[in-house]
Amino acid sequence: MFENVTIVGVGLISGSFALALKEKGFAKNIIGVSRTQASLDKAKELGIIDEALPLEEAVKKSDFIYVAIPVDVTIPVMEQIMNLVTDKQIVADAGSTKYVLCKALENHPKRKRFVATHPMWGTEYSGPEAAVRDAFTGRSCVICEKEKSDEDALRTVEKIYRELGMHLTYMDAENHDIHAAYVSHISHITSFALANTVLEKEKEEDAIFELAGGGFESTVRLAKSNPSMWAPIFMQNRENVLDVLNEHISQLRKFKSCLEKENYDYLRELMENANKISRIIK
Amino acid sequence: MFENVTIVGVGLISGSFALALKEKGFAKNIIGVSRTQASLDKAKELGIIDEALPLEEAVKKSDFIYVAIPVDVTIPVMEQIMNLVTDKQIVADAGSTKYVLCKALENHPKRKRFVATHPMWGTEYSGPEAAVRDAFTGRSCVICEKEKSDEDALRTVEKIYRELGMHLTYMDAENHDIHAAYVSHISHITSFALANTVLEKEKEEDAIFELAGGGFESTVRLAKSNPSMWAPIFMQNRENVLDVLNEHISQLRKFKSCLEKENYDYLRELMENANKISRIIK
Repeated sequence: MFENVTIVGVGLISGSFALALKEKGFAKNIIGVSRTQASLDKAKELGIIDEALPLEEAVKKSDFIYVAIPVDVTIPVMEQIMNLVTDKQIVADAGSTKYVLCKALENHPKRKRFVATHPMWGTEYSGPEAAVRDAFTGRSCVICEKEKSDEDALRTVEKIYRELGMHLTYMDAENHDIHAAYVSHISHITSFALANTVLEKEKEEDAIFELAGGGFESTVRLAKSNPSMWAPIFMQNRENVLDVLNEHISQLRKFKSCLEKENYDYLRELMENANKISRIIK
Repeated sequence: MFENVTIVGVGLISGSFALALKEKGFAKNIIGVSRTQASLDKAKELGIIDEALPLEEAVKKSDFIYVAIPVDVTIPVMEQIMNLVTDKQIVADAGSTKYVLCKALENHPKRKRFVATHPMWGTEYSGPEAAVRDAFTGRSCVICEKEKSDEDALRTVEKIYRELGMHLTYMDAENHDIHAAYVSHISHITSFALANTVLEKEKEEDAIFELAGGGFESTVRLAKSNPSMWAPIFMQNRENVLDVLNEHISQLRKFKSCLEKENYDYLRELMENANKISRIIK
């Protein structure tokens, strides 16, 4: 049980994390840090945080600091935090990219107080209103470069995620970013692009509204995601995302060619191959 | 209330439709027709149908015949059915393409006994086991060329879908196929292609299994769909699907170019535009 926990960012991930910390009895007092006063007010109103403080004050007061803000802002903010912490405090982040951050912190004198994590959960919504109870249960959480964290910091963070019902997976930051491109970032790109496709082609918005079934909704829902969150993710992981995106465009071209040439057999073959995803996603 | 209803095909759509007909008191006896004995046995076991009969026998005995089989097979089967029906019987289909079928039937002497429909509901599963109760509630149903159906046939089919909780929308077959390409068929293509992308790039299947979050699942779940159902849909609607697919590839190329050129502002702009889909898909 921590006396004081700071969450930096009071949105979807940090908010859901704060609610879970309270529920599981990990935190007595939760301090919110955000550049946006309205978000702090909302987070307080929703019972996500107990108080709001400026970053420095919050960090100094806290046993545990959890950072979940856009990945481009994470780096300078994390450096600020790491310059403040003592050997007793624990810092963790929840960013969707890990390589650039880990690289930026690798030589920091307090690196060992930091645990690099990525809980694999999210929705297309953002802000404190998007925070939900029981968000992480049954999902995976990646911990990167565990050997670079102090034993006590690592154990504490592992214990929290396990109590939240997450499965822990360990990998280096480079591999994390490759896998994240495959299983998360590309899904967001395709969804954003699909929304633009339909908005471009389908001028009769009423028709979309009337006709769109569950299939369309599920492939396009990620297109509602927050650009401030996702643009920096794509940029930080651009080489891996480009690699997967190129492959995806070439896979789409195969479908295109089947339709152009009316090659029914190859079309079926492509679809049967895609069906193999059932082995992986139940 | 019909004495006898035939469902041709005993899968996801026809099976769910049969369950709804029974529940709403529209049918006393439901007859299943299928080329696959195992499906008929399963449908009977699941209480979807009361009996199984060969097509001709089933049609002759029925007041209402509902056809929900792959769209390529629908045309010859529908011609067979239309050759059998009297001016008292009603026939409807549930196919995802409407133009080719309506064209094939336009000069049939019994055309007026047929109502061309497309209930906009489905899941990625198929077969009688995929049938669910309360499937169509709250979804849209397109009725095409209503002026080509007899008044009584149209009214009956409308009444059934309304009782099932569907909103009715009317359009010609050509427009239906254009809209269906935008709001349904392209989602399936992107999902199939995304599954192939990930299966191709991500050789470590365990990593996908471990890491895949809700976002990936929702964009890729349609890739589990049945190729026997979807390959004929793409082929029958190939011109519209190609048109949307070309647009989609060009939208993906914009994301690619932003990443290649590190054009952060344009990337954000693309994503902000995609966010407009929130206006349409709640």
